[in-house]
Amino acid sequence: METNRTDEEGPVCAHFQQAAELVGKRWNPQIVWVLQGGPARFTDIRAGVPQISDHLLSERLKELEGAGILTREVTPSTPVRIEYILTDRGRDLAGVMGELAGWAERWSVAPAAPAS
Amino acid sequence: METNRTDEEGPVCAHFQQAAELVGKRWNPQIVWVLQGGPARFTDIRAGVPQISDHLLSERLKELEGAGILTREVTPSTPVRIEYILTDRGRDLAGVMGELAGWAERWSVAPAAPAS
Repeated sequence: METNRTDEEGPVCAHFQQAAELVGKRWNPQIVWVLQGGPARFTDIRAGVPQISDHLLSERLKELEGAGILTREVTPSTPVRIEYILTDRGRDLAGVMGELAGWAERWSVAPAAPAS
Repeated sequence: METNRTDEEGPVCAHFQQAAELVGKRWNPQIVWVLQGGPARFTDIRAGVPQISDHLLSERLKELEGAGILTREVTPSTPVRIEYILTDRGRDLAGVMGELAGWAERWSVAPAAPAS
């Protein structure tokens, strides 16, 4: 009974929880950050998030596409050109991430409980 | 080499990653949400986040205290009164979470790729 997980009932709805988890998932903020600069190819994103592996980046891009944050555009040229582009929803989220980055910056120089 | 994790080097710093993980961690947004209403006792928070277990709530409160988001105030009355209070840093973070909640609300009614 204690751990009944009906998120819809809480004061904060399930949509918020999903959004928070999306933002908190490792590398997602960085990927969105890079895409805020405009459409980018896999290698461009890879260059902007150097610590991620190719495998994990592929996975994250699929997840973010599934969440409606970005779209994958294929241009049938030779060779085929594949670009990742933020959706309106993704651009809006990027703005919120900017707010979070601002918070991190404001408080990173002022630790919680400075000793001595 | 591919998965070298020197977060400081990326375009988004380690502080942001920490902030994003804090926000994305299950129940943290809800706990901060409740505390935004003012100082609260364990049972008050528990009532505001009904799905969480006592054990997990204790754990999260300790983590959030460690991250400088909240403080634990003990009033030596009989019985002892223990309240959790957001720090300035925590109140600032609550504002950002409000932005994220706004995003979730704006887009929850408009799914990414409406079919048909």
